[in-house]
Amino acid sequence: MSRRRKHWGWGYEDEQLPAAQLEALAAAMRDQLRFGGEVEAPAPLPALAAPRLAAPARLRELLDTSDHDRARHAYGCSYRDLVRGFRGDYGNPPDVVAHPRDERELEAVLEWALGAGAAVIPYGGGTGVVGGVEPIVGDGYEGVVTIDMQALDQVLEVDETALAARIQAGASGPVLERALRERGLTLRHFPQSFELQTLGGAIATRAGGHYATARTRIDDFVESVRALTPAGVWASRRLPGSGAGVAPDSLLLGSEGTLGVITEAWVRVVRRPAQIASTTVSFPSFEAGCEAARAIVQSGLTPANCRLLEADEARLTGAGDGTAALLLLAFESAELDVGGSIGQAVALCLACGGTPREPRRRTPAAGGDDRKVAAGENLDPAASWREAFVRAPYLRDALVAIGVLAETFETAITWERLAGLRASVAEAARQALREVCGGGTVTCRLTHVYPDGAAPYFTVLAPARRGAELEQWDAVKRAASAAVLDGGGTITHHHAVGRDHRPWYDRERPEPFAAALAAAKAAVDPAWALNPGVLIDRPPRRSRDSS
Amino acid sequence: MSRRRKHWGWGYEDEQLPAAQLEALAAAMRDQLRFGGEVEAPAPLPALAAPRLAAPARLRELLDTSDHDRARHAYGCSYRDLVRGFRGDYGNPPDVVAHPRDERELEAVLEWALGAGAAVIPYGGGTGVVGGVEPIVGDGYEGVVTIDMQALDQVLEVDETALAARIQAGASGPVLERALRERGLTLRHFPQSFELQTLGGAIATRAGGHYATARTRIDDFVESVRALTPAGVWASRRLPGSGAGVAPDSLLLGSEGTLGVITEAWVRVVRRPAQIASTTVSFPSFEAGCEAARAIVQSGLTPANCRLLEADEARLTGAGDGTAALLLLAFESAELDVGGSIGQAVALCLACGGTPREPRRRTPAAGGDDRKVAAGENLDPAASWREAFVRAPYLRDALVAIGVLAETFETAITWERLAGLRASVAEAARQALREVCGGGTVTCRLTHVYPDGAAPYFTVLAPARRGAELEQWDAVKRAASAAVLDGGGTITHHHAVGRDHRPWYDRERPEPFAAALAAAKAAVDPAWALNPGVLIDRPPRRSRDSS
Repeated sequence: MSRRRKHWGWGYEDEQLPAAQLEALAAAMRDQLRFGGEVEAPAPLPALAAPRLAAPARLRELLDTSDHDRARHAYGCSYRDLVRGFRGDYGNPPDVVAHPRDERELEAVLEWALGAGAAVIPYGGGTGVVGGVEPIVGDGYEGVVTIDMQALDQVLEVDETALAARIQAGASGPVLERALRERGLTLRHFPQSFELQTLGGAIATRAGGHYATARTRIDDFVESVRALTPAGVWASRRLPGSGAGVAPDSLLLGSEGTLGVITEAWVRVVRRPAQIASTTVSFPSFEAGCEAARAIVQSGLTPANCRLLEADEARLTGAGDGTAALLLLAFESAELDVGGSIGQAVALCLACGGTPREPRRRTPAAGGDDRKVAAGENLDPAASWREAFVRAPYLRDALVAIGVLAETFETAITWERLAGLRASVAEAARQALREVCGGGTVTCRLTHVYPDGAAPYFTVLAPARRGAELEQWDAVKRAASAAVLDGGGTITHHHAVGRDHRPWYDRERPEPFAAALAAAKAAVDPAWALNPGVLIDRPPRRSRDSS
Repeated sequence: MSRRRKHWGWGYEDEQLPAAQLEALAAAMRDQLRFGGEVEAPAPLPALAAPRLAAPARLRELLDTSDHDRARHAYGCSYRDLVRGFRGDYGNPPDVVAHPRDERELEAVLEWALGAGAAVIPYGGGTGVVGGVEPIVGDGYEGVVTIDMQALDQVLEVDETALAARIQAGASGPVLERALRERGLTLRHFPQSFELQTLGGAIATRAGGHYATARTRIDDFVESVRALTPAGVWASRRLPGSGAGVAPDSLLLGSEGTLGVITEAWVRVVRRPAQIASTTVSFPSFEAGCEAARAIVQSGLTPANCRLLEADEARLTGAGDGTAALLLLAFESAELDVGGSIGQAVALCLACGGTPREPRRRTPAAGGDDRKVAAGENLDPAASWREAFVRAPYLRDALVAIGVLAETFETAITWERLAGLRASVAEAARQALREVCGGGTVTCRLTHVYPDGAAPYFTVLAPARRGAELEQWDAVKRAASAAVLDGGGTITHHHAVGRDHRPWYDRERPEPFAAALAAAKAAVDPAWALNPGVLIDRPPRRSRDSS
């Protein structure tokens, strides 16, 4: 690891924009958005408070207490994380960052941390946007140890018969795709954070990926998981399916670091697509586009891409001119001819009033650039949209610098309630923007579609009041989240819960389930050390056994 | 409910075979199997021990303590259940059978049962084959109350936009399909037990259904679940997908009555297929058929049927002559042309050495007989196999009567280990049969296939030693189950765990998960009243809180 990650925001220190380019970018963004100000420089990394935990000598080479490393692990990548990092607000970093290189070292770190009375935060790529790795752990801990899993980044085995691979939890998207590509295989888990996110983080947060239909989240790719818990190793069997009671993996999927530290998983992979057929279809209204997307998935077609952009969102990303909603459609296959599928999908679009471009068919290069694939190589001809998708994490850092509040939030809802929820959430966000920002834009796209519903994804851009960004963010987040819950949606379709979504998550989940989850955690983590504050709170001490 | 269920075995009292027909059937079976003896008559229902619980006056119309009702709810439908019922062995029936007609009545029953210190066994169709409803609950209970949910059998709402229906837990296959058919819809959950099984039972046991690929178990159809637990109502939101932490429904799916009584669910439905394309493909070996099935699912095709029969199993069911393994293939769709898909699948079969029949395409009758659909109307031209599938539950009763030991067991395994597991399991079962039955047959089919593996399903037929059937069954079950576990498989792909699979389930599941599940149960069912003995044992009383 010769390259050093920037202590705040996205990417590596050696790939940041030079000042002149940043100025030009800022000017272009101001021009398009009609708000945003001068480029502000990020605050230098301040000196942090001394760590509250002392690293024992035998683990010293695994534990880092440098200011840079602690600061870099203090936040995820949400707008409010970026703003705080940008302003040098590092008042609550982890005390120690551990970098185990294998499961044995992880076990030693965990044992030490538990013995020291610390809270333990498992850390993948740090790309989360919901406060999942922020050391707000509550009282009762001697300090916080963040365990960075990125040194466990190997593809350990590839099963070319069953099409599955055993991969360590810390492997990032590019690292694991590189190893799989040698065998002509791919995981095709391509979130926007592809470059830095890790497999373990994806599993712990039930991250969404490449496919817009059928296999939308990492859940669908997991064959078995292995995690280290304070109660021992939690490892499931490699199985294509099982009906043996409650699925063990289902408790680790979405556990967000509260039940154990995921160390590796067997995941299902596919042969690299040899054929991609894609097109874009314009619709006179978003509603007409929804009808088409619904018709496509309800017919049984499973396009790899089926993303619907509002006219304004299409304009904002350069994918359209703002006069029509756009449906980005693509089918891909390693073996099958996909011409029939795209033809059937286009016919359904025509029946819903869509105007399709001529579908394009092509053979992706065998050694294709994964950054481009991640961005939706299959989205062509919507190249501008794709470009925006890749650039987004870098762009967001620049938006902070020019004083633009940028936030995205997403949910899922059944089809018959989609129009109502989209309207009420957008209106709630706009109302909040008017009050706290004096204006701004809210646009929407569907990122994933299902036979029974869809996942709308909202993008908010507004003039930030420098120094008051967190209050502004908070107001918008609260208004939008309440509207999502009131509209029957989920607080997150694929961004996880973390600490930021807790109030609404608590409203969403069934009460007896919350009690069951808390008890399950206490059983495997009796010291309540793992990522406290996420998903479930430590229950008040009981005076006696309830049985 | 004017018709009365037979107190033992399958179906209703008014549809049992007359003696002469049973004799003829017995002769035909003896002829085919070359074992089996004279037709024995079932023992009459004996007088049962008096119930240990007194029904309170206010609930009297909901509670049944008649011998017939208690006997009928004493067992499921496994071979060992049938044998005991046939012999009049009703030494351990539930004390009271409750028949609530709505959730309010269920709550009253549950409250009374908990207050009375009873164990509570939720009961759907009683079609399980793993001892899941048998009142072996251990010590510490004043008696057993079995709650029969079949009076809650309504389809409460149908959402024709999102294609989902809200259905009560006690609705059987025919009842719910009838209601859906009026809207041109279908759940297409067609296990062999279709006629009697209930939706709630399917959810509690993660039952397998119609589709051989992609959406293989009820899990894939569940949009939200509602259950009554001792800690209150556990109800999830209707969502097409969510990434908000651990999925609440995933804890109820497969909970087998241990966490709550499922009262209703929103399930995804589909439009009734307008087009079915099907064929059978012969293969020189089972292995070649496996290669073809694997190629089909790994290509991305998702046939509704893709079941592979060993040559002997094809002969046994009359689907083939015993010279070739047979792959039953079908694609179906309400909207799309399925000709392309079956053509692609057949091409893959040809490449693996298969000899396909000419595919047949047809339009199913809109008002088709669901028993036939359940049996795989789409399987034509393998009509004999389909007929055998429907008849099987009735046939099994007759097998008991003529002294044939009949058992099925199933698992799932990744492709690269399939051949080894199939061989070792079959050999273990044959060895046990030689020892305890002096012979018999073991045949295998694949019932479900996945990109990364398949679900092999074994059928055992052997000469029973009258009066010693349970010991024989036990020896075969133990040998086969140990081989399944040793071969890396799961103790069940879709038959659930119940009480019969417990020893091997305990070996299969990760230890920390077992601890988590036990704690989760204790949180929602502190009296440990719900279906004790299934999945998890009551932990020894702890002396103090572990936190």
